[in-house]
Amino acid sequence: MANGSSAKWDTFQGKEERNAASGITVRSVLDEIMENLNPSDQRVVVPLGHGDPSAFPCFRTTDVAEDAIVHAVRSAKFNCYAPPVGIEPARRSIAEHLSCDLPYKLSPDDVYLTAGANHAIEVLITALARPGANILAPRPGYPLYEARAAFSNLEVRHFDLISEKGWEVDLDSVEALANDKTIAMVIINPGNPCGNILTFNHMKKIAETARKLGILVIADEVYDHLAFGSNPFVPMGVFGSITPVLTLGSISKRWIVPGWRLGWIVTADPSGILQKSWIVESLKSYLKITADPTTFVQGALPQIIKETTEDFFLKITNMLREAADMCYDGLKEIHCITCPHKPEGSMSTMVKLNLSFLEDISDDMDFCIKLAKEESVIVLPGFAVGLKNWLRITFAVEPSMLEDALGRIKTFYLRHAKKQ
Amino acid sequence: MANGSSAKWDTFQGKEERNAASGITVRSVLDEIMENLNPSDQRVVVPLGHGDPSAFPCFRTTDVAEDAIVHAVRSAKFNCYAPPVGIEPARRSIAEHLSCDLPYKLSPDDVYLTAGANHAIEVLITALARPGANILAPRPGYPLYEARAAFSNLEVRHFDLISEKGWEVDLDSVEALANDKTIAMVIINPGNPCGNILTFNHMKKIAETARKLGILVIADEVYDHLAFGSNPFVPMGVFGSITPVLTLGSISKRWIVPGWRLGWIVTADPSGILQKSWIVESLKSYLKITADPTTFVQGALPQIIKETTEDFFLKITNMLREAADMCYDGLKEIHCITCPHKPEGSMSTMVKLNLSFLEDISDDMDFCIKLAKEESVIVLPGFAVGLKNWLRITFAVEPSMLEDALGRIKTFYLRHAKKQ
Ligand SMILES: Cc1ncc(COP(=O)(O)O)c(C=O)c1O
Ligand SMILES: Cc1ncc(COP(=O)(O)O)c(C=O)c1O
Repeated sequence: MANGSSAKWDTFQGKEERNAASGITVRSVLDEIMENLNPSDQRVVVPLGHGDPSAFPCFRTTDVAEDAIVHAVRSAKFNCYAPPVGIEPARRSIAEHLSCDLPYKLSPDDVYLTAGANHAIEVLITALARPGANILAPRPGYPLYEARAAFSNLEVRHFDLISEKGWEVDLDSVEALANDKTIAMVIINPGNPCGNILTFNHMKKIAETARKLGILVIADEVYDHLAFGSNPFVPMGVFGSITPVLTLGSISKRWIVPGWRLGWIVTADPSGILQKSWIVESLKSYLKITADPTTFVQGALPQIIKETTEDFFLKITNMLREAADMCYDGLKEIHCITCPHKPEGSMSTMVKLNLSFLEDISDDMDFCIKLAKEESVIVLPGFAVGLKNWLRITFAVEPSMLEDALGRIKTFYLRHAKKQ
Repeated sequence: MANGSSAKWDTFQGKEERNAASGITVRSVLDEIMENLNPSDQRVVVPLGHGDPSAFPCFRTTDVAEDAIVHAVRSAKFNCYAPPVGIEPARRSIAEHLSCDLPYKLSPDDVYLTAGANHAIEVLITALARPGANILAPRPGYPLYEARAAFSNLEVRHFDLISEKGWEVDLDSVEALANDKTIAMVIINPGNPCGNILTFNHMKKIAETARKLGILVIADEVYDHLAFGSNPFVPMGVFGSITPVLTLGSISKRWIVPGWRLGWIVTADPSGILQKSWIVESLKSYLKITADPTTFVQGALPQIIKETTEDFFLKITNMLREAADMCYDGLKEIHCITCPHKPEGSMSTMVKLNLSFLEDISDDMDFCIKLAKEESVIVLPGFAVGLKNWLRITFAVEPSMLEDALGRIKTFYLRHAKKQ
């Protein structure tokens, strides 16, 4: 064809790698691992790699949520385009819902709806990006922050989470990293990938450090209330009067409906500083030219929030607690793996891989590829979340599958264990 | 508060206006006009400004589509995250659906699902943007192309649509504008804002021009099949063997469910050039880090497409034809307005404002603001779509409201007409 490779549009090939460079996502790493599955293995593949238990019958969402969607669709009131910030009743219901855990009241105007928390990250990072600016983010963390920041030319500097201290933030490294171009620091609590819950006192220190540094806190609370250890979940917004907080959340995890794509960005600062800032201006202006969440899901939100009972939430946290315990206990028997901190929140835990116990495994990715090939178990290599030679294990699966998978990992370990 | 205006994050104020500069959207212009509505006017506000008739009972979507959503939600099979490109059954159903009108078969791999066609524009413009590159877009057009291109530093060059020739593309100006940095040209057919339908022969000429220039065609067919004049709708993909075509579409207009947020980008080139190009690579890599359409809406799509009957589509096009006729005839009596081309597709028409007939109206925006204030009728000023001192009138409203609105515009005209 005349305009094949000679076509002008094709000469741009490779001119700029910006998009391709936006790089690592949990999904792309998992896809690569899954290519190594052995199709002749008759056993079921156990996915301990990603945080989406919605396919398991025991993690099915509540009828109440489904009913609310059906009701919203049947009403035909929400077939229309929504305003870029979201429809008012949905914003109001989020404001009221989140205010229950805060010492002040949020207004509907504090709430900006997005197509899930991933989209909230996309919108927020885009809105914050300024030439020369930087943000601080946790290591290990959630790679979409890095990918979106790279896309927007926003520098990311990493502070450590300390495994020996229950994955607390290393506040000294935060102070050392921040400079006069630092806009914000990201806190993910309940923790993904670590499965920890920050204490009230530590969170207060985080807020005070942020205030001292003159930076905002971005509080990723997508796993809010999924806490089942001794520390209760405390929203970062509680400290919004110390330093302004931008809270991100969604219905994906608590209601186990990640496919419904509804999330939010909330300005959680009782003094209303953020509302009047360039950040909210920038946010609102970007919301006008980016994707919107499905209107009838927005329309269903007030009913979902109002009618979901404590029973459902309790059932889910109980199930997560049991799974976390089973996972923690099961891993103890696998000597090449150390879990430094018993998981007490979210759906996953970070464990250290001791390669010196293994004969023919070169690193975390090699471990995960061979585990997929030989045992049909999928686990996320730590490098994907910033910690090379660690693993992120998601325990939010059907209990019988989890037990089965732990057995297979043990078999795998024994097969590859260094002979003494 | 200590960290109020002295906060470091606040010093970035105004450092870069990129987001704010992304500028004009139809919605922001309409919002500004609606601020001028007179709250003491007892009459209903008639919205002839935007393309969303979903609120009118006569334009309610088909039960079949609602049933498909309810079925997908109740199945609980689509609560999960979807792959970045969309779920296979939905991609397959779009491929089969669009293939009906093409001389070759699309494969599911040609289809990339997005959160509506707006999001398709967002994804495609982001994927195409390269330093120094440009695209050609129609004037008048759809301002999101300009807004997203500005955001991605992609230059837009405008070719004219010729009102005297039924809003055909001025192919001479296309040739004059293109240079060796031109990647693509945008064609919107059925036309928004003009309400025209391009002929087969003219479309073939467009494809041949694009081939000669070595550029792609981006075919925005969000109003596909909403044709009710003498020209039938022909998809641009028909000419995909002349030059590769990227087709954008959605269920928003044909099924009148813009709030459901499901659209697509399709590679329509039988030689498969695009599939192997940097463009599809770039597209796929960006889809990994941007919003996804709601999974259960994707899940419902095969049923929506399969079960919607011709009756529904016929009812809608008949209603649009009647409304277009009523609008065209009604406008004839308003001497300050000329409609150069009877609308035969989509939901709107472009009309010229003859300011010399008016006494105290300075321009299109002034006309729209005063019309909103005095008559509670909303119309879009042409500058918002690239043609100053024109108006875009949407006729897709309840017929009785349209009649009423045309009467009010006439009254408004008589009140402001220059006295001879
Ligand atoms: C830390 C974190 N933030 C955000 C998200 C995105 O959640 P959503 O489903 O609301 O997009 C996830 C999903 O796993 C997550 O783990
Ligand atoms: C020309 C054009 N393209 C794209 C869109 C966006 O449609 P969607 O609702 O699928 O995002 C519209 C909506 O009005 C439009 O007029």
